[in-house]
Amino acid sequence: MKPTLPQGTRDFGPDVVRKRNFILDIIEHVFELYGFQPLETPAMENLDTLLGKYGEEGDKLMFKILNNGLDSPGKEKQVKEDFEKLLKGTPVKGITERALKYDLTIPFARYVAMNHHQLTFPFKRYQIQPVWRADRPQKGRYREFYQCDADVVGSDSLLNEVELANIYHDVFTKLGIRDYELRINHRKILTGLAEACGGAHLMNSIAISIDKLDKTGGDKVLAELKERGLEEDQLKLVRNYLGISGSNEKKLQTLKELMPDSASSLKGIEELEYLLAHVSPKESFQCGLSIDLTLARGLNYYTGVIFEVKPPSTVKLGSIGGGGRYDDLTGLFGVPDIPGVGISFGVDRIYDVMEELDLFPKTVQAGTQVLFFNMGEAESKKALELMQKLRAKDIRCELYHESAKFDKQFKYAEKKKIPYAAIIGEKELKEKSCNLKDLRTGKQSTLLMKELISFDF
Amino acid sequence: MKPTLPQGTRDFGPDVVRKRNFILDIIEHVFELYGFQPLETPAMENLDTLLGKYGEEGDKLMFKILNNGLDSPGKEKQVKEDFEKLLKGTPVKGITERALKYDLTIPFARYVAMNHHQLTFPFKRYQIQPVWRADRPQKGRYREFYQCDADVVGSDSLLNEVELANIYHDVFTKLGIRDYELRINHRKILTGLAEACGGAHLMNSIAISIDKLDKTGGDKVLAELKERGLEEDQLKLVRNYLGISGSNEKKLQTLKELMPDSASSLKGIEELEYLLAHVSPKESFQCGLSIDLTLARGLNYYTGVIFEVKPPSTVKLGSIGGGGRYDDLTGLFGVPDIPGVGISFGVDRIYDVMEELDLFPKTVQAGTQVLFFNMGEAESKKALELMQKLRAKDIRCELYHESAKFDKQFKYAEKKKIPYAAIIGEKELKEKSCNLKDLRTGKQSTLLMKELISFDF
Repeated sequence: MKPTLPQGTRDFGPDVVRKRNFILDIIEHVFELYGFQPLETPAMENLDTLLGKYGEEGDKLMFKILNNGLDSPGKEKQVKEDFEKLLKGTPVKGITERALKYDLTIPFARYVAMNHHQLTFPFKRYQIQPVWRADRPQKGRYREFYQCDADVVGSDSLLNEVELANIYHDVFTKLGIRDYELRINHRKILTGLAEACGGAHLMNSIAISIDKLDKTGGDKVLAELKERGLEEDQLKLVRNYLGISGSNEKKLQTLKELMPDSASSLKGIEELEYLLAHVSPKESFQCGLSIDLTLARGLNYYTGVIFEVKPPSTVKLGSIGGGGRYDDLTGLFGVPDIPGVGISFGVDRIYDVMEELDLFPKTVQAGTQVLFFNMGEAESKKALELMQKLRAKDIRCELYHESAKFDKQFKYAEKKKIPYAAIIGEKELKEKSCNLKDLRTGKQSTLLMKELISFDF
Repeated sequence: MKPTLPQGTRDFGPDVVRKRNFILDIIEHVFELYGFQPLETPAMENLDTLLGKYGEEGDKLMFKILNNGLDSPGKEKQVKEDFEKLLKGTPVKGITERALKYDLTIPFARYVAMNHHQLTFPFKRYQIQPVWRADRPQKGRYREFYQCDADVVGSDSLLNEVELANIYHDVFTKLGIRDYELRINHRKILTGLAEACGGAHLMNSIAISIDKLDKTGGDKVLAELKERGLEEDQLKLVRNYLGISGSNEKKLQTLKELMPDSASSLKGIEELEYLLAHVSPKESFQCGLSIDLTLARGLNYYTGVIFEVKPPSTVKLGSIGGGGRYDDLTGLFGVPDIPGVGISFGVDRIYDVMEELDLFPKTVQAGTQVLFFNMGEAESKKALELMQKLRAKDIRCELYHESAKFDKQFKYAEKKKIPYAAIIGEKELKEKSCNLKDLRTGKQSTLLMKELISFDF
């Protein structure tokens, strides 16, 4: 009888919705300032669209939707056969044809592939929607959560990377998160390293090992790479690579000296230099933007600049954003040659950072500004009239729903954190006045009703 | 290879998202003006929460989610048994435990039941989210669509009905939909009629027949009721009831004379009179608010005032809103005695009405305001700098992604409906000026860069 929520899902009550919207509105506003346009795709996609795009693990963690009408007698034999296949791990059309979207990138690619003839390229879209994953729920990991992406597709210009870095900066500044760190690296530099270590095919193993540096430490990384067959001089190169430090300029200089003949690495360095030279205003990025040569980002579809945002170091949380350049968004859907670059914001983590650093402005919770007390029939009628005038001036107000004791009405205002009580009793009604009480200070004043209408709440 | 969308679902491209948001933002803003608070519930609910709440048809049309891990060997026998049951039409835990929400009311009830100890009553919430139904898709009917509800629960005061009627008026006025009609009726009047025709148990049959009056005409309604066993004098009563016409006051007067002894009907009349007397400002409702004694609204959980909004008569579309009072929201979830009243807006239909009457303001499509032409490396760098200053003033701007022919850059601006082009070439760079072209009028002017920053776009 007692209802519950599905594991890993959440209700967002009024306070939380308002705080989340504070974050989302800022992100959306900044996306718009940079010429990005909104897109919304359905919660469901055809299984064909999603399967095989996220690896075996992704296919498993997708929420698949049961076909309707399975109980139709004519189909029974086929449905049973299909179910047997499903039990062996293969989703079959007879049982399920749709799934909830797993991220925003594949649906975006599907949209671009379906509409590329009508779109204006470069197409700059942003998308803020929930996605679903049947992951084991744990602290900070949910089965339904929002993703918040901006991508430019149909352009290989580095100006896009510059603008996306600027977007990160604008958003976090507007949110009040000042000491975040935007780390950048370039997949071509990692390719260069892999080539120098025996071949580009090692790229992913090296990326995966290096990605764990933070957690495991350099020795473990080197041991792992040795196991993967790297020889002594190659391991030495990796050791030197991991040891590169100093300012951004210093890092790139050292890297050039370490792999002077790697065309891949030099290309990557050149692009990072371009990015560093063009983000604006540069001063504001002094500490925020740093080259992190150990940044790899797991997804192997990245091919150029990669981004990752770390929260202020006082907050113990993982990254709050990330992204990068990819060569081919829609090839999987039969439309080749659409490169792109994108970033995303981790809304849930940003929320946690804002809470932990107490960055939400007090006004974010603002609901009703004035509660009109209910003092009886005639008084209420007048209150209804006044409220319409206040609302015409965008003042949020409400009338207590019944004529009750003062105590009860005050309590309601208090619980809803309403700052003003407007009290119109018999006397005030006669005098066309109103008793206005500031519930935060206790200060009380008597205004004419027409003064109330123009009061500065 | 060629991807498609699941039947009955839609992508919303930039133009459509902006227009939809124009509608949703107004509705949300008005809800806030009336002291309503936002709530968001997950897309998925436990099947237990949803099953049996929408009748047999609803249970069938629910999108159920396939459990993950069905291929786990240990479970195979149980899963197969459960699947046999599913094939007989009963959803079973072994196969599916969750479904996509079917409306916003039951999840709201579930939320209130789970949180009633912490909530402040009356609890006024609004909720704007998608819901899913496996209906056969057809023109104007989708499998994923938005609902947009406001409810007050924990209060039986008629002031709530008054405010909800005012909300309808404010929203449609702000949207620019002037000749809509808000029809009201009272379920107790229908109860009174049913009692006079043989008993309250006939209520639903009578409501269903009467509801079809628009489509079938009075004769058919009467024939149907005759079949249901109504006698001659009872049919005469219904005929007289259906014939009631005139002003709102006249209708209620005639009704009182028709059923002078029905306590139910008199109670309903009294409440409608209260509503009519309190909506404010009354004048603005002159033509908009009308009593429609044939309005029944199918859902049998309504117990008091019922609402339905018809679009302007020039638009051939069904209702664009509806709602009513109910006695018991959360009883199903073990928490009794929470009455409430709510309304909803039909966002898809409102969108169609706005399109048909050409009511979307031209500014609703506004994306980028200024396109900076890309005239080379040094010029772009300056453009990036200027854009940051413009964005700090909330001007939406972007730089064309590559140094291309004028034609190509103009075409991009045109396709994206960008009103201004800012052109900084070698000469302008030297002179710290900028060539600004209004692309709507063709008018061109040369400004200093610092003038550009304070230009009134």
